[in-house]
Amino acid sequence: MHLKTEIPTARDKLLFTPGPLTTSLTVKQAMLRDAGSWHSDFNALVADLRSRLLRLAGLAREQGWEAVLMQGSGTFGVESVFQTCVPPEGRVVVLSNGAYGERMVQMLKHARIVHRVLRSAEDAPVDAAALEKCLAEEPAVTHVAVVHCETTTGLLNPIESIGRVAKAYGKTFVVDAMSSFAGLPIDFAVCGIDFLISSSNKCIEGVPGFSFVLCKRAALLASEGWARSLSLDLLGQFKGFEKDGKFRYTPPTHVILAFDQALRELELEGGVPGRHARYRRNHEVLLTGMRRLGFQPYLNPSLQAPIITAFLYPANGRFDFKQLYDELSERGFIIYPGKLTKLDTFRIANIGRLFPADMEQLVGAIASVSGLMSNA
Amino acid sequence: MHLKTEIPTARDKLLFTPGPLTTSLTVKQAMLRDAGSWHSDFNALVADLRSRLLRLAGLAREQGWEAVLMQGSGTFGVESVFQTCVPPEGRVVVLSNGAYGERMVQMLKHARIVHRVLRSAEDAPVDAAALEKCLAEEPAVTHVAVVHCETTTGLLNPIESIGRVAKAYGKTFVVDAMSSFAGLPIDFAVCGIDFLISSSNKCIEGVPGFSFVLCKRAALLASEGWARSLSLDLLGQFKGFEKDGKFRYTPPTHVILAFDQALRELELEGGVPGRHARYRRNHEVLLTGMRRLGFQPYLNPSLQAPIITAFLYPANGRFDFKQLYDELSERGFIIYPGKLTKLDTFRIANIGRLFPADMEQLVGAIASVSGLMSNA
Repeated sequence: MHLKTEIPTARDKLLFTPGPLTTSLTVKQAMLRDAGSWHSDFNALVADLRSRLLRLAGLAREQGWEAVLMQGSGTFGVESVFQTCVPPEGRVVVLSNGAYGERMVQMLKHARIVHRVLRSAEDAPVDAAALEKCLAEEPAVTHVAVVHCETTTGLLNPIESIGRVAKAYGKTFVVDAMSSFAGLPIDFAVCGIDFLISSSNKCIEGVPGFSFVLCKRAALLASEGWARSLSLDLLGQFKGFEKDGKFRYTPPTHVILAFDQALRELELEGGVPGRHARYRRNHEVLLTGMRRLGFQPYLNPSLQAPIITAFLYPANGRFDFKQLYDELSERGFIIYPGKLTKLDTFRIANIGRLFPADMEQLVGAIASVSGLMSNA
Repeated sequence: MHLKTEIPTARDKLLFTPGPLTTSLTVKQAMLRDAGSWHSDFNALVADLRSRLLRLAGLAREQGWEAVLMQGSGTFGVESVFQTCVPPEGRVVVLSNGAYGERMVQMLKHARIVHRVLRSAEDAPVDAAALEKCLAEEPAVTHVAVVHCETTTGLLNPIESIGRVAKAYGKTFVVDAMSSFAGLPIDFAVCGIDFLISSSNKCIEGVPGFSFVLCKRAALLASEGWARSLSLDLLGQFKGFEKDGKFRYTPPTHVILAFDQALRELELEGGVPGRHARYRRNHEVLLTGMRRLGFQPYLNPSLQAPIITAFLYPANGRFDFKQLYDELSERGFIIYPGKLTKLDTFRIANIGRLFPADMEQLVGAIASVSGLMSNA
């Protein structure tokens, strides 16, 4: 493998990014095997993973829930819901306050699905009152879609209040929980979720290569004949699993073996509560340290999820993000650029195989580089 | 990893399947690293892989060719071509003589793309004369699509003669070379190929997780505004690579590191000619051995590619495929069931990290199990 390392290190650079993220060695070692995707052992493993995903979410097949894995990144999973489960005459309302909300809009445009976008500012939660007004005016709407943790800013959207409105009007509720699922508790019943999408390489801390959809079986079965894509046909994928336990098309077998190990390590950490606690500690260490260095978070703390944090460029005119990024990279830390439309920010995520001590080391490195910059 | 192994063995079962297939340990070990998909090192690697794929095919960017990677299985790559590059008023002719040709038809149905299917028998090559007649009758056709090595049977379709007709009528020619690319020589100019699709886990012997499309840049750029899916938007994916070297959406980073190593091992083996020679030897050992045991291949030898071979169930009434499969699995060999619509067959592939000695061992194991069956 020819990735350059300026300073040879015993381990890879730590990824303070929202995925791909730093994973445990044991997760990666699970990929040192070749499994036949047609073989019964592998199919049994896939069935087991689907059950464990439901359990992790507090759901059960007996109560009408299903977990469907989909090849590709998280975006493929979100799009599989729209491409499959919105009827030809369907209409989708997207609540958007960042790049991932806008990505949903792009999906709907590509699929030529009628939609309306309710936008909020990037530093404000999406608006349940605006949704209520929209649904009262437009009875033809069939689906409401929102991003849970908007990775653009790290903002946690109020999926309970949005879901309550969606359900009051009898709409199907779709939640992109890419960067929050398994890192934050989510109550499907309270939120009225019909479809939730996440991926292998976020808070479950597997490696990237597939996404998964947790959904009400009835809502999935109702979409017979609607799929606009064969690969992204979520119902077809589900039927394949039900028929003979197999993926319809070649699964990323190694990535799935890693996911099995990642789920085991999540279970050992105490499930979602245990992981959530670590991410909160990581986030607190980061925030306290960055504030000490004079960096201000972009969001009001009440809106901030303990997943990824956007920091404003300091007023200090000597700040140079490229230099900060490169110097941190040389020290073995990879951070993330900002994605805001109007303000200059950079982002630091605290998910993945990272611990409070790693966050402290990162803050220490940022202190050193900031010192270099202000003395330049 | 909890895949059951009836008899603990030092290595995984050998996969005589058309993918996922047996890969080298060094290819798998390349996945023991976490790479940041936003980092310049990773982007440089992706750019390098795209160049090496073109070189492997005897193509060059300077001559108007591009390589675009696409997340998901090979099916996602084939569908990305249809979903992106067929205009709204486009019409596709599919030449089909097996399950993978029919899969293309399913893709077109899902995307509501007007199409016509020219079917041949499963044991006959697709028909250039039928294509010529069709194109003469239907000037509105825009694309001609065919599978190179039809994995249903192992039949090698005559892409030169099909391409010649497609080009004579000025049509765009799409070739699914999933299981043949890098294992068999393919002359893009002679065949008149505009789009060719293959995947990470076939003859390049990487692990599954993405596909790639080799195409004429002009044909790709002409498809502006046509994409019916965001995730499968091949032009959008290309523009992302060109803009900043990045995948638009999270790539399977570990799978890509493995692919880099797999390409290196292919280069060490002497590129396509070297690999083709090994696959031919593997196939000869298999065929000679199986014939000696009384098994007959399904296809006329002149149609057979040295990739995967379908064998007829022997006339001997005691033959039981399930028993053969299970007994071979216990001995560490995974073979593949048949996929023919009318005749009972089973299949044995000879691609992946397999050598003539492995084929001999497999034949030996089949001899033992056949002995068990006939003495039962």
